[in-house]
Parts: sequence; structure tokens; C-alpha cells
Amino acid sequence: MTLSVLSDEHFMKQALVEAQKAYDQDEVPVGAIVVHKNRIIARAHNYTEHLTDVTAHAEMQAITAAANFIGSKYLVDCDIYVTLEPCLMCAGAIFWARPKRLIFGAFDAKRGFTLLSDDILHTKTEMKSGVLSDDCGKILTQFFQNKRTKI
Amino acid sequence: MTLSVLSDEHFMKQALVEAQKAYDQDEVPVGAIVVHKNRIIARAHNYTEHLTDVTAHAEMQAITAAANFIGSKYLVDCDIYVTLEPCLMCAGAIFWARPKRLIFGAFDAKRGFTLLSDDILHTKTEMKSGVLSDDCGKILTQFFQNKRTKI
Repeated sequence: MTLSVLSDEHFMKQALVEAQKAYDQDEVPVGAIVVHKNRIIARAHNYTEHLTDVTAHAEMQAITAAANFIGSKYLVDCDIYVTLEPCLMCAGAIFWARPKRLIFGAFDAKRGFTLLSDDILHTKTEMKSGVLSDDCGKILTQFFQNKRTKI
Repeated sequence: MTLSVLSDEHFMKQALVEAQKAYDQDEVPVGAIVVHKNRIIARAHNYTEHLTDVTAHAEMQAITAAANFIGSKYLVDCDIYVTLEPCLMCAGAIFWARPKRLIFGAFDAKRGFTLLSDDILHTKTEMKSGVLSDDCGKILTQFFQNKRTKI
């Protein structure tokens, strides 16, 4: 029997499943999951419109749910996957949560935290970008194209 | 009959009442309130330890509560008072919420958002700092001094 270590692409596909749920509910399609020892312990998607709450980004909800699941405010040994580069608010939350890794898909050329500084995350947190970035970007492009068509 | 416009000091005292509630529950004593047309519509204090949630800063909860109260994710014509300079997460949330004003008390020499940039808030949001800064700072100093004494 061999230990199967699942790939970043595998987990990003799960974050994309969350993004699609947001899309289907007319929310900006961003999804996030938290993985602990190869197991998904939290799933969330952007829900700002339904909750009338700017803080209800995918990452924020995933962090809260994961901390609740593991019973610790620090997400030790956890990896956060998110389809879009976190904004400053979410990067700030990820700083406080101190996960082992942050993996994101598409870069956010308007609101991505790396536009301001690469030094925002906690030193305990490694970052990887560009995982399935085409798919992660495409769902957003399609969403905003549809919005413009409706106007 | 004259219209009474309450001062920033008046409202910061109310944020300090919230900070004291945090202190009394062994939480880092930071308090926040949201004011809409001279009326307090949300009150909150830091509650990260009790909720096991790094996102439960005073400002985050105050923004969520205020948006819920006014039924809009944008805090139009609202002022946010917070006893301590917001961290990046909270400043990012305040950016998204677009209040009319952010008023804070003490500067945060470690985690304050102005250490990174003065340009993080939305252009719609004015900022004022240093309101009752001595009182706002003193409650934090006392909290951490007590913590060190207990160790």
C-alpha cells in the first residue's frame, strides 16, 4: 500500500467547484477550501451579495470554518486553496491564521495583495500561485462578461 | 431648538466601553462602533479567543452588524470608530465597506495598516487618528502588563 499525496491541482479543482457554486448564485465566482493532512476540512465561496456583507469572501469563511473544525485559531498544518489571489482583507486574515501554505489560482490585477507587498503573509506560510490559473480566471471573465451583456 | 452634533470623543468613549468589555473577558481590549446619522448602529469588541477565530476583530464584527442593520453592504454615511488602528485585514474590510469616515484612537506600531501604506482605504473614506489615543492605548498596555505578570 502506498500513501497517496494529492496534488495542488486536485485541490484547486475542489476550490473551483466552490467558485461554480458562487457563479450559479450570481455571486462573484471565487472559491476556497482548507486542507488538513490531505483532507478537506472547510469549503466556502464568495457570498457577499446574499449576506449583504463585504467580509463574506470565500477565504474568510473558509478560515472561520476550518478553525472551528480543528478547534484552533491557528491553522497549523493547513493549506488554503483559493481560486483568486486574496485581497488585502483576506491576506490579512491569512496572516493571522498562519496556515502552512497558501495556494492560489489566478492573479488579481486590481485587488491582489501582492500588488502592495510580498511580505504580508506570516513567515510560517509558504505561497504558491498560478495553479490552474486559466480555469480560475476563465470563470471570472465569463461572469463579468455575462454581467455586461445583461446591462 | 438646536441640532446637537456629537463629538468624535463622545463616540470614541463608546468604543472604549466595548474595549473594556473585551478586557473583562480576557480578550485583547479593542472596541469598535459604527455611527449612522449620529446614532450608534453597531457595537463590537475583539472576540478572537472566545470564538477561536482570527477574523473576529472588533471592526470586522461591527462592519457585519452595521451592514445587516442598514441592509446595505456599503456603509454609506457611516462612521467607524475603533480604539486601535486597524490591522491590514480590518483596513481591507473597511476599504470594501466604504464608510464615510474611519476614526481610530491609538496607533498600532506593530500591525497598523498605515505602516504599509496610507492608500489602503477607499477614496470615499476620510481618516482621522489619535482620538483619545492615551485612553485607547492605556487599556492595551495594562492588559499586556497583566498578562506578563501572570506568566
